[in-house]
Amino acid sequence: MLVTDLIRRKRDGAELERREIEFLIEGYTRDSVPDYQMSAWLMAVLLRGMTRAELAALTESMLNSGEVLSFPELPAAKVDKHSTGGVGDKTSLVIAPIVAAAGLYVPMISGRGLGHTGGTLDKLESIPGFNVNLSVAEFRRVLAQCGAGLIGQTKEIAPADKKIYALRDVTGTVESPYLICASIMSKKLAEGIDALVLDVKTGSGAFMKAEKDAVFLAELMVETGQRLGKRIVALITDMDQPLGNAVGNALEVAECIEILNGKGPEDLRELCLILSAWMFLLGRRVANVDEGRELAERMISSGKAREKFREMIRLQGGNPGVMDDPGILPHALHKADVKGTASGFVTGFMTEQIGTAGVLLGGGRAKKEDSVDPAVGIIIHKKTGDKVSAGEALCTVHYNSPERFEQAAPVLLQSYRIGTAAPSEKRPLVHQIIGDR
Amino acid sequence: MLVTDLIRRKRDGAELERREIEFLIEGYTRDSVPDYQMSAWLMAVLLRGMTRAELAALTESMLNSGEVLSFPELPAAKVDKHSTGGVGDKTSLVIAPIVAAAGLYVPMISGRGLGHTGGTLDKLESIPGFNVNLSVAEFRRVLAQCGAGLIGQTKEIAPADKKIYALRDVTGTVESPYLICASIMSKKLAEGIDALVLDVKTGSGAFMKAEKDAVFLAELMVETGQRLGKRIVALITDMDQPLGNAVGNALEVAECIEILNGKGPEDLRELCLILSAWMFLLGRRVANVDEGRELAERMISSGKAREKFREMIRLQGGNPGVMDDPGILPHALHKADVKGTASGFVTGFMTEQIGTAGVLLGGGRAKKEDSVDPAVGIIIHKKTGDKVSAGEALCTVHYNSPERFEQAAPVLLQSYRIGTAAPSEKRPLVHQIIGDR
Repeated sequence: MLVTDLIRRKRDGAELERREIEFLIEGYTRDSVPDYQMSAWLMAVLLRGMTRAELAALTESMLNSGEVLSFPELPAAKVDKHSTGGVGDKTSLVIAPIVAAAGLYVPMISGRGLGHTGGTLDKLESIPGFNVNLSVAEFRRVLAQCGAGLIGQTKEIAPADKKIYALRDVTGTVESPYLICASIMSKKLAEGIDALVLDVKTGSGAFMKAEKDAVFLAELMVETGQRLGKRIVALITDMDQPLGNAVGNALEVAECIEILNGKGPEDLRELCLILSAWMFLLGRRVANVDEGRELAERMISSGKAREKFREMIRLQGGNPGVMDDPGILPHALHKADVKGTASGFVTGFMTEQIGTAGVLLGGGRAKKEDSVDPAVGIIIHKKTGDKVSAGEALCTVHYNSPERFEQAAPVLLQSYRIGTAAPSEKRPLVHQIIGDR
Repeated sequence: MLVTDLIRRKRDGAELERREIEFLIEGYTRDSVPDYQMSAWLMAVLLRGMTRAELAALTESMLNSGEVLSFPELPAAKVDKHSTGGVGDKTSLVIAPIVAAAGLYVPMISGRGLGHTGGTLDKLESIPGFNVNLSVAEFRRVLAQCGAGLIGQTKEIAPADKKIYALRDVTGTVESPYLICASIMSKKLAEGIDALVLDVKTGSGAFMKAEKDAVFLAELMVETGQRLGKRIVALITDMDQPLGNAVGNALEVAECIEILNGKGPEDLRELCLILSAWMFLLGRRVANVDEGRELAERMISSGKAREKFREMIRLQGGNPGVMDDPGILPHALHKADVKGTASGFVTGFMTEQIGTAGVLLGGGRAKKEDSVDPAVGIIIHKKTGDKVSAGEALCTVHYNSPERFEQAAPVLLQSYRIGTAAPSEKRPLVHQIIGDR
């Protein structure tokens, strides 16, 4: 089998066979296929697309390039949730405790923030002592004891994805929905889960800003998951404004604790309940989504989810006292409001800019190598549809460097769209559900 | 300027600016742009195409990546001819002496055979002592003395093309007409010529088998040459059967000597006269093509072209006695006929197969690293339209290894298409002329 032939056939729009895709991915993982051939093939995939069978073969080859976890000892379904990323998107920290509190297992392998989107690992690390770098053996122990564990990708999981992702990043081949699907699904399915709920974001703060692109990616992921034998659903959810009010690592953890205490912003609470409900359904813990939602609500109102999060923090080395006193979280030296310059209504956000402001404050990463400041961030006071007066605070910035504040403040101000009337229609939280069954 | 942005913009069908293409090619030539980025860009070019302005910028950047020859000391026009390659295509050895004999200069940098097509350098090297590896200073001296020189590509000429070609070969990006055009034109325009005649082959023995593909490539090359300030024309010529009767290095040299002696096959003689005529016209030696053709005929009938070839051989270290005694050329140990199995008419050839038979005999290269046997080859006796009887010789094979003969003979037999009637229409030698002005 000649790699050049596989490149040429994909280039000409032909369908590659499973064994051909396996040959390519195995060869690339063990360095017998060079970067320059893989990048040509990736560009051909980006421009020519793939069939669903090819995509399943690619995902499975990447999945099988490393260790595939398995938890036969756990007595209930293993379920996870994956989000394509957004601004203020912190649901994992709420959902994992809710679902584990109801008796399912959540072996969650998460990522770090990059560009305008935050990352679950960065948020968790703002909890003093919290260790996301568990070995597989430690992860297994945490899972067995409390039902949920949240760690980072190990080098053993899907090494082909790690290598391909680094190459895509420098060869203009990041944006292919096929390659995005294979990257996400190969990592998620290596977690040894039975079911997966996908939260595919759409809107001005999402990677897939147009809903049709989000739907296309969701359909690819759902079909790929099904072909690989998983129960799976994708919710297309709104990312046209930040989710909740907090943007920034420690600030977001504090907001999650509020939700687990039965308080917090309504949109964040609602999305956490909906996603948990679907996890319960796919995990066969309930018979329908409504039952799932009621179960999730009970996990919060009873305090069980809160206690589950406390237990998880303790097992992963963090200070569980944060549940009672969020003041333990790192906090910034300074706070200042960004005030509106016109009166009217918030008609929308350039949400990606809010994330960019977070990066400018030092709370996110422009490049993978950057370190993050856990304390800084933004608390949003006015969201879409809210009335504002000139001079009123739109948001409060938590910062450590006045210089960085000076950079971030105008970006935040510009990210608000203020009009004379409130938008006539409210965008729903969940736009579509793909793969319901 | 970020290479990734240039890849992404080409991927999305945008037009790159001249300085962006220069940045990419310069960077690749001096190793600051890695192979994996260049291969992704090449695949994007192959699938997205280029504008004519981009193609001219690419060609010029590749041209300027190395030494660009210039012969201000020569007192007449410098003209060259380039063929896209075929089977039995040996016109350079006839044309260079004809054109030089009439007072123009032909600084010809040629290639070697690869796959089913032969190469001018391999043919010349079958002349005992002939040296194609002259330094630029020696090349300049030969040109000044006799008006024509034929050498191989030096490492100083268009190094970007050498590097890009090697990468295209292993990344499925050979077939792009844009990349083929830039490769050919960057090398040819580095010769310091004023005018160029392109012989773009079409038919079963050409790289561009379909005429529309040949025409498209020809149009690209003509426009690129014009944009770079050269007088240029492309002739779309027939390669649906071998040109002349000889296929094989020494056999082809002997056939060229026949032509220069006023004999030899009519199709080869005719194409040499036509191509020479266009070179005379573009070199402003004559006022129209008919005059050019008459001048070319006179150069043959007067013996001036023959003497010019003799002089060129002598100046490049070869044995000029070959002009009087072609028996000096290497000859194979064995000869055997391939005989037809049916009676009727030759209706056509799978011409590429004839070239492949030559490679099987050892006279060509399957891989770049292969060495060639100058003596072996095929003399074609029956061509398209000829009547054949079962048992009659279709061609004679000159070979050194009986094993290789056994491999080549059935390929030759199968390459003949025999029918009950002669084809009703004869394919013309010149199908179209592109860029006449």
